[in-house]
Amino acid sequence: MSDTVTAAILVIGDEILSGRTKDRNIGYIAEHLARIGVDLREARVVPDIEEEIVAALNALRTRYDYVFTTGGIGPTHDDITADAVAKAFGVGIGEDARVIAMMLERYPPGELTPARRRMARIPDGADLIENPVSKAPGFRIGNVIVMAGVPSVMQAMLDNAIIGVKGGAAMLTANVDAGSLPEGRYGDALREIAEARPTVSIGSYPSYNDGRFRNQIVVRSKDATALEDARAAVEAMVANLKGDAAPL
Amino acid sequence: MSDTVTAAILVIGDEILSGRTKDRNIGYIAEHLARIGVDLREARVVPDIEEEIVAALNALRTRYDYVFTTGGIGPTHDDITADAVAKAFGVGIGEDARVIAMMLERYPPGELTPARRRMARIPDGADLIENPVSKAPGFRIGNVIVMAGVPSVMQAMLDNAIIGVKGGAAMLTANVDAGSLPEGRYGDALREIAEARPTVSIGSYPSYNDGRFRNQIVVRSKDATALEDARAAVEAMVANLKGDAAPL
Repeated sequence: MSDTVTAAILVIGDEILSGRTKDRNIGYIAEHLARIGVDLREARVVPDIEEEIVAALNALRTRYDYVFTTGGIGPTHDDITADAVAKAFGVGIGEDARVIAMMLERYPPGELTPARRRMARIPDGADLIENPVSKAPGFRIGNVIVMAGVPSVMQAMLDNAIIGVKGGAAMLTANVDAGSLPEGRYGDALREIAEARPTVSIGSYPSYNDGRFRNQIVVRSKDATALEDARAAVEAMVANLKGDAAPL
Repeated sequence: MSDTVTAAILVIGDEILSGRTKDRNIGYIAEHLARIGVDLREARVVPDIEEEIVAALNALRTRYDYVFTTGGIGPTHDDITADAVAKAFGVGIGEDARVIAMMLERYPPGELTPARRRMARIPDGADLIENPVSKAPGFRIGNVIVMAGVPSVMQAMLDNAIIGVKGGAAMLTANVDAGSLPEGRYGDALREIAEARPTVSIGSYPSYNDGRFRNQIVVRSKDATALEDARAAVEAMVANLKGDAAPL
């Protein structure tokens, strides 16, 4: 198994691009992947347009080890993800008997409307991903994992979705609170620390509240010894600059 | 002026992909663009890697009327957006005298560290975008608008950034609350309404709380008459199905 396992997220839905709905899936999946040692390398949001979904999916699935999609697997006319995924893979799609059986546990046969039957459309050869909330499953085909868009439903599916996803070495992180020490005062020293340590990635993240910036420096590495060395260097740098008599 | 003006958002930053920071800029910019009649067609999140930023920016700027970027314009070594934008456009980059002058209003000359001077690196030919919070400006070059990543700073820049951005006809929206009426019960009728109205886009958006789904149907169009016709049709459909004696 390679030490580095990569992934991308494809969020599908006009409602995100119109600003009506604020995406919460990218952040949730990102945290989850970090925990299991999968490097999230890219995320995209595309509208409910088949050729856009197909193009983005094909770009991402050839480039990364896994692609996680959210959205567009419900029963209404704007739910076109399953058909787009089948088209991207060049496989057929039809009503899946396994899904119809699941849905009949929830709906009496007379309520299995054509709209609901749409949720049983699964690309040929895909494995189902159980949906503990509302039955209609997600699916996995090749390296693409297709999930619902509603955050609580997606979250319930994700645990099932990542069964079998192989993570690489987990990314370790350490946080150094730079407090109100301005980035402009430590930027040069931090660059030197970062450049001397190629196996470590160091980021500086300001936040702004009540008229003040506060900064966090985050050190990331897959090597625990390198991480600790870098963390100690950053901490010493911050302590040194905070003790410095120069005006902030 | 064309009736349709398009845009994309490019979010730049490892911290979003690692899950450490939850993006709030896509949703904010999306809402803002909808208000001024600009259609957001795509959003991407890429890491702090120059070739990734260049490739994504060139893909987006050739395809859409405007590209809004957030992140990577601070003073630390991981802030590489300005250099990546210059590379994408094939132009030079250097310290901009206008920015140095702005920064000298904030910092005594002795505190204009090399790190801070990095924030004055602006691609040749770019216009500056004022930053009312922390002085270091964003910039606009061609159809690309480069802003800070910290949400409150980005928001303060955005009003200045969109001066001169021409919107098309504004997208009008109407919302019909389907309440607890399941999507699976109205999906077929909604498809008929949508297919009969090609100038209107209709979406169905479930949310899930306390063990129940609730659904909103959103009708969007640039034509007020078509919007009202579709809204009335959706509302009648919902009222009809709610009055229906069939079990939910």
